[in-house]
Order: sequence, then structure tokens, then C-alpha cells
Amino acid sequence: MAHSIKDIAAALGAEAFGAVDIFVNGAAEPAAAGPDDLALAMTPAYGDALAQGKACAAVVWPGADWRALGLKAAIVAPRARLAMAGLTQMLDQPLPGSGISPQAFVDPTVQIGRNVTIGAFTVVGPDAAIGDNTWIADQVSIAEGVEIGPNCQIHSGARLRRGVQLAARVILQPNVAIGGDGFSFVTAEPSNVEKARETLGEGDMEIPDDPTWHRIHSLGGVTIGDDVEVGANSCIDAGTIRATRIGAGTKIDSLVQVGHNVIVGDHCLLCAQAGVAGSTVIGDRVVVGGKAGVADNLIVGDDVVLGGGSVVLSNVPKGRVMMGYPATKMQTHIESYKALRRLPRLMRDLAKR
Amino acid sequence: MAHSIKDIAAALGAEAFGAVDIFVNGAAEPAAAGPDDLALAMTPAYGDALAQGKACAAVVWPGADWRALGLKAAIVAPRARLAMAGLTQMLDQPLPGSGISPQAFVDPTVQIGRNVTIGAFTVVGPDAAIGDNTWIADQVSIAEGVEIGPNCQIHSGARLRRGVQLAARVILQPNVAIGGDGFSFVTAEPSNVEKARETLGEGDMEIPDDPTWHRIHSLGGVTIGDDVEVGANSCIDAGTIRATRIGAGTKIDSLVQVGHNVIVGDHCLLCAQAGVAGSTVIGDRVVVGGKAGVADNLIVGDDVVLGGGSVVLSNVPKGRVMMGYPATKMQTHIESYKALRRLPRLMRDLAKR
Amino acid sequence: MAHSIKDIAAALGAEAFGAVDIFVNGAAEPAAAGPDDLALAMTPAYGDALAQGKACAAVVWPGADWRALGLKAAIVAPRARLAMAGLTQMLDQPLPGSGISPQAFVDPTVQIGRNVTIGAFTVVGPDAAIGDNTWIADQVSIAEGVEIGPNCQIHSGARLRRGVQLAARVILQPNVAIGGDGFSFVTAEPSNVEKARETLGEGDMEIPDDPTWHRIHSLGGVTIGDDVEVGANSCIDAGTIRATRIGAGTKIDSLVQVGHNVIVGDHCLLCAQAGVAGSTVIGDRVVVGGKAGVADNLIVGDDVVLGGGSVVLSNVPKGRVMMGYPATKMQTHIESYKALRRLPRLMRDLAKR
Repeated sequence: MAHSIKDIAAALGAEAFGAVDIFVNGAAEPAAAGPDDLALAMTPAYGDALAQGKACAAVVWPGADWRALGLKAAIVAPRARLAMAGLTQMLDQPLPGSGISPQAFVDPTVQIGRNVTIGAFTVVGPDAAIGDNTWIADQVSIAEGVEIGPNCQIHSGARLRRGVQLAARVILQPNVAIGGDGFSFVTAEPSNVEKARETLGEGDMEIPDDPTWHRIHSLGGVTIGDDVEVGANSCIDAGTIRATRIGAGTKIDSLVQVGHNVIVGDHCLLCAQAGVAGSTVIGDRVVVGGKAGVADNLIVGDDVVLGGGSVVLSNVPKGRVMMGYPATKMQTHIESYKALRRLPRLMRDLAKR
Repeated sequence: MAHSIKDIAAALGAEAFGAVDIFVNGAAEPAAAGPDDLALAMTPAYGDALAQGKACAAVVWPGADWRALGLKAAIVAPRARLAMAGLTQMLDQPLPGSGISPQAFVDPTVQIGRNVTIGAFTVVGPDAAIGDNTWIADQVSIAEGVEIGPNCQIHSGARLRRGVQLAARVILQPNVAIGGDGFSFVTAEPSNVEKARETLGEGDMEIPDDPTWHRIHSLGGVTIGDDVEVGANSCIDAGTIRATRIGAGTKIDSLVQVGHNVIVGDHCLLCAQAGVAGSTVIGDRVVVGGKAGVADNLIVGDDVVLGGGSVVLSNVPKGRVMMGYPATKMQTHIESYKALRRLPRLMRDLAKR
Repeated sequence: MAHSIKDIAAALGAEAFGAVDIFVNGAAEPAAAGPDDLALAMTPAYGDALAQGKACAAVVWPGADWRALGLKAAIVAPRARLAMAGLTQMLDQPLPGSGISPQAFVDPTVQIGRNVTIGAFTVVGPDAAIGDNTWIADQVSIAEGVEIGPNCQIHSGARLRRGVQLAARVILQPNVAIGGDGFSFVTAEPSNVEKARETLGEGDMEIPDDPTWHRIHSLGGVTIGDDVEVGANSCIDAGTIRATRIGAGTKIDSLVQVGHNVIVGDHCLLCAQAGVAGSTVIGDRVVVGGKAGVADNLIVGDDVVLGGGSVVLSNVPKGRVMMGYPATKMQTHIESYKALRRLPRLMRDLAKR
């Protein structure tokens, strides 16, 4: 769908210059842009690439001399990535399909709002409820009693087990598993894990009398707030006797694990392959970097930033930037790390003394 | 389903006090408990919360003065988490559905036991066998010749490829992939990986004459023992010429990778996002912490505990508690770590001398 | 299907000795081999095991005295794993099924090549195209406009969203998600992540005025080259305004995350649970070890080897072997690591001086 430069700029709250009535069909990188594309050249580094492409119009950086760059029209974006949000939303295609597929298997007791889409081979169990304008792809599993709010998007292969509640505008990417049973097992006598934690690994572990793991069932489900997005193949496990909870506005990337009973606050980011173990509480606006992990039963304060790959083994006060294994204040980590790099030389020097 | 305090205590092998004929419908955290809930206040930390909730009955810690806590009845649990196992099992709902869905696609040659459930859009290939009382959700894929024992639970989106055998009482959470092809490739001449391992990274890698990766096919399938549970979106790859094996009673969390040819012993725990690379042998009762990894072709002894996030790069003797990257004895790791923390100061002090 | 020793040796380009007209039905480990199996005893370590099994023929190491090992026939493989590639390919079963399942839901506008298989409950959207001899399992989702080349294998539960293009001979293992939306969000003002990166964690983070994450939509799809394989439950996210790209001959293991806009070169290996964050460029023939991670917006040169568990936080020159967190040259890492191990002793010694 074509948009004029003027309309795009207005939608972005940005300024437009030149032939603002030109229409564009899509966005492209500067070097790859065709004559009907809006080139995205949001930093001076992209200036040269504009000449390689064929764009007549571009989003450019503040202060760019767009005429000298060979453009007929330009939009100036003071915060480039924010402009990307508005722009890509304008240019996105609507979701395909509409209505309830005759190949879906929807229990007659399901409450379905207005303008709902349900794709082929999707199963919706008894007493589930689906809000207005919610779009559900093919091959989704929605268990008995699951509640889904309005304007949600649920992609293929997502699994919502019993006790799952989604608020409004929740997006689940493909193959997400919400409400799988928590990983919660216990031995009759204290296990080697319990012993290792208590002794901090002193001495070796011995063969227990009865190694059987007894299963703690997950009765609590999962509650997900407004505007949450969950990435492909991520898992949020059901709570034991109350729901695992994800706060409003929180965004979860692909292959992330959220354990049973975890509470994640509002407006957090959990980047790819991050993991939060059982019963841990994550505050609001926390950023968990890619591959970072938080051990079980901890408290991570509001506005904490955990660097990629860090492993949190103790509570974190609010606002702290953390890194390492175990994670410490980023500055402490960097100081230790720099000292470690100089250590081989120090040892050689000391050996000479 | 309602249970009396007396019956619950009997089932848990615990003692009951007070009005033991009171019925409860479910379990709840103390502060959130309604009048028909059994509050779970298994440590003194929960004492105050009981007053905030409305529970008449609770599971309390040994020595608790349950009358003073405002309760009419109490169950005393000496080992709280063990009581949780029995209690949540009692209060859990039975699995929904029964019988073979007319929307399932089951080959006529499949051997089906008594009282089997197969959900909508599940596919079961020729010559597969399904044991008595096994419950299979919607949208599961079961390949030709797969054997599933009695009393198993297989949730939506689980994939069982050829050569997979499940024993009795196996639970597969949603989107589990069992028997995908192993990651096994070889170049005609020694590859850079082989060179890097041999030289321990001395010198830079060069462009190989022929970088083509030839595929080693996976003919061996996967064998899974009694009482194994596999968490959501986890993967267990097929062996090359014999089965990848998971021992009885072993529990595997979400997003775990078990590579081809791996042998995992009995009663192990593999926590979320753990990974075991190809052909490694894990003993009995081993605990692999969350995000921990074990490299390929290693042997990890019985009763080993690997701390969360640790990366094992060499064999581990039985009974050892390990931590770090590369993983070492936990105590060695802690000693090194403490020294590292003091190193910046040491360097400053030495500079002053 | 039975093959003669002579034919197997010829197919492998290896030499055969003894009764080369013997037929074998399969391959097995030496100790487990039956009389009709070809035992795989490719190193002297397997010599003793041959006597425990019943094999009459084996693949043996160069220089083995096959008669003394009790064999009637032998194949000598100079490069054992390469022989495994050819051998397992010969002995593998063909994929089951053929034709378009009447239970599949294929839009009438789909272009379907010759000899295509599409399994039950698979959905193929409008204007998709499927090349000759491509095999698609049950319960696969193929979105509108997706292009799949010839001779591909797509296993159950794979999800291909809009804008996905697969070239020839691509293999997708179960539950792979290709083309899920990228994890790309932006706040109106600089977020705590941006601040933490800029200040390297100096000072604590504060509560932002507006913590809302605005979504950058993913319009760019994913392009996958010839002979690529993607392991079970792995994810490759769609690009923003151009495709995320995987080069020809690259092999990706299970539970791997490839972020939006990433470019992976040809003939790479991405081992299990590896992750490459958004917009990073990985050269040709790069090996990313298991659980290794590469941060966003970086460049990793050709022929780089990243050790298992390493975390790359800056650009890597071509040919380098890297290890650690943050990853450095493997030799630097080992040197630091050895020094760290000796540090507690050094500190004790210095305290005595």
C-alpha cells in the first residue's frame, strides 16, 4: 500500500522536505532501494549508499543535505529507531485470513468475540473465551478454560494449556508454549542439590537412599498482561498454586524460559535465550540480556540491566547494571576482568623479582 | 474436587489437628486463600500472611501454634516440598478428553491399548504402538513404528520421529522434539574445528580447500525409560547407529538439548536450557543446573552436581560438585573467584611498593 | 535394504578385503552387532568389542589385522567420520509417504512441483511455491507467498512465516520457526539499555519517564541458501526491511537463535543453543560452538572458530579461534585462566612475605 512522504512524516511526527507528495510502496536499505522505495539512511554512514540505490525519497539524519544526496524528498528523523517503529507499522501488511476456519476444531461452548479469526486445524477447548478482533493462526492449541483478550495475535503452533489468561494485544510468535507444567520435583530426603547448596560443594556427593523425584503438580496457570509479546519457541511454565505472571508491556524474545511461579514486572525486556528460574521475582522495566540467567527464588529490583550472558545467583538491588558469572556490578566486573588480563604479566614479573 | 483435611493428611502421611473433617477445594498461598482453600504456610515466614487470607485450614510448619494463627484445622508437614508433591497431585484435575478423536489421523496398522486418548489433528504413522491408558493431546506427530508405553502423557505439538521408544509413565510437555536428526557433519579433510581443538587455538585458521559439510545420517532413534518427563520445547536427538538413551526417572526441563548418542542415566535432573553434546555419557542421579553445558564425548560420573551456567569441558569424577567455565570443583571455583575479586586491589598495592 | 561389502566400499571410495560379497542389512556398534550388521570399529579402541558382537564384517581402522579380529570381510576407512557420512546415507530409510494428503489444507493458488509430498494437517497459504521432490511432513505451516526450492525436507511442526525463501535441499527439523518477528523495540527517549551501554554501567539506572516499548515491525523475511539444515526448535527471525540471510551449506543445530537482519555466511556450523543477536554479520565457514553467543551489530570474520559457551562482545578478525566471556583469542583466554588458577596460591605467598 502506497503512502505519501507527507503522510508518513505526519504519522511519525517528523518533518518532511522537498516533493512531499511523492508516493512510496515500501522501505529499503539505501543501496538496495528501488525508485518506489523509501530509503532508510538514518545515520551519515548510509550517505554514500544512497547513490548506489535508486530511491527518490529517504529518511535521513538531522542535518543531512538531502538535495546533495540526490533525493527529491526527505524525512528527518531525530530518533532513528523510533521512526522505524512508526514507519514499519505503516508499511506492514494486515494479517491474512478472517473468520473461523471450517477446519478448526472449536468447542461449541467457546465464547468468541466479534471479528475473530481462527485458522485451520486450531483446537479450542471447552469454556475458552476469545476477545474481539483476536487473530489466531492455524495449528494453535488452546486448552479448556483459557481466556484470551481482545486484539491478540497468536501464531502457528502456539500452545496455551489450562489456566492461561492473556490480556489485550498480546502477541505470541510461532511454537510458544504457555502453561506447560513447572519443573518442580522433590526427593523424600534432602537431595544432592540441596546438600551442594548448603555445603557450597564441600566434599563429594554420595549415593542417596532413594533417588526418586516426586512430582509437584502445577495447578496455577499463567497470567499475561496487556501488550506482552512472546518470541518463537519460548516457554512460560504454569505456577504451582498461583499463576506465573508477566506484567503489561513486557517483551520476551525467542527461546526464553520463564519458570513456574515467576513474576515478571511491567515493561521488561527478556532477550533471546534468557532464563528465569522458578519463583524468582523480576521488577518493572528490567532488561535481561541475551542468554542471561537468573537463579530460582531471587528478587531482581526495578530498572536493573543484566548484561548478555550474565548469570545472577543472588538478589539484585534496583537500578543496578550487572554482568558476569556470577553477575556483579558491571564496573566491578570490568575492573576484575581488566586485572585478570594483566595477571599473566604480573606473575611473570613477580617470578623475576 | 473437595477433600477433607483428614484425608489429605492421611494421603501425605502427615498429622492433622483440629476440625479435621473440614473440606477444602484447592490450595492457595496464605494471603490469597479463600475460606474453602487449604493455605500453604510451610515455613514461619508465612505466618503473618495467614491473617490476611481467609483460610480455615492450612499446612503449617512443625511446631506452629495453629490455633494462634487463627486456623480451625492444620496439617503439619515435616518436609514441606514433599507434602506439596502429594497435595498438588490430589488437587490436580484429570486430563480432559477421552477416546480417539475423529479428527485424528491414525493409521489402521497402529496397535492401540485400552483406554487410550488421541486428540484432534494428531497423526500416528503405520506400525506405531500405544500402551494402555496413554493420553495423547491434539496436534502430536507420531512417526511410523514409534512405540509408546502405558500411562504416558504427550502434550500438544510433541514430535516423535522414527526409532523413538517411550517406556511407561513418560510425560512430554508441549512442542517437545524427540528423534530429530543428530547434528553430525564431517568435512573431507580435517576441519577448522578439529584443528582448533588440536592446537588449542594456536595460530589463525585458514581457508580450507573444501568446506563442504557431509551429513552423517541418524539411524539410531531414541529410547526413553520409565517415569521420564521432558519439558516444553526440549529436544532429544536421534543416535547415529544406536539409540540416544534417557534413563528411568530422569526429569528434563524446558528448552534442554540432548545431542545424538548421548546416554543419560537414571534419576537425573536436567534443568532449563541445559545442553549435553553428542556422545557424552551422564551417570545416574546427576544434576545439570540451568543453562549448564557438557561438551561432546565426555563422561560425567554418578551423583555429580553441575551448578547453573557451568560449562563442562572434561570428564567429571563421580560425586563431584562443579561450577564455572570451564567447570572445576565448586570449591576451587569459589577460591579462584574470591581471589579474582581481590586482584584489582592487590595490583594497586603492588604498584605502590 | 541389504548391501554387499564390495558395494559399500565402492560407494565410500574405500578398500574392501576378504569375502566382499557378504551382504549386510545395517550398521551397529561392534559389541551390539548381529551377524547381518556391519560393525563400525573405526579405531583400535573398538578391537576388543568386535569379539563380543557377532559381526562377520566391519569397517576397521587403517592397519587393522581384520582376520585376527575374527572377521570374514573388512572395509578400511582412512577418515572414519567421513566414511560414516557415506555409510549412514546408504543405510538410511527413504522418507515415508508420498503425494498430497487429503487432510492437508493447500490453497488452490499454490504452485506445486513434481513428486511433492505434503502431510496431513499441513497448511500452505496462497501463492506459495514448492519445488520438485520436496517432502513436507504433517502439521507444517507455510504462509502466504513462501517459496520452497526442490528436494527440501520439512519436518513436523516447522513454521515458515511470510517472506521466507528456501533454496534447494534445505532440511528443517521438527518445530523450527523461520520468519517469526524480530525482537526490535524502542522507547521514545533513550532507554536504560542504551544508557548502560554508553556509561559501561557507571551509576545506577533511574525510572524512565515513559517505559513503553514501541514495536519495530519485521517486513524483511528470511532467505535460506542451498543445502542448509536447521535443527529442532531453532528460530530464525525475519529481517526488518531486508531479509535475514543464511548462506549455502550452513548447518544449524537445535535450539539456536538467529536474530533479525543477521547475515550468516556459507558453510558455517552453529552448534546447539548458540545465539546470534540482531544485525550481526557472520562470515563464511565460521564455527559457533554450543551455547556460544554473539552480541548484536557485530562482524565476525571468515573461518573464525568460537569455542562452546563463549560470548562475543566485539568484532572478531578472520581466522581467529576465540573463547571466554567476553571472548578473546583462545590462547589469551587459556593464559588468563591458568594464571587465575594459580592466583589463590600467589596471594597466600604474597601475604607471607
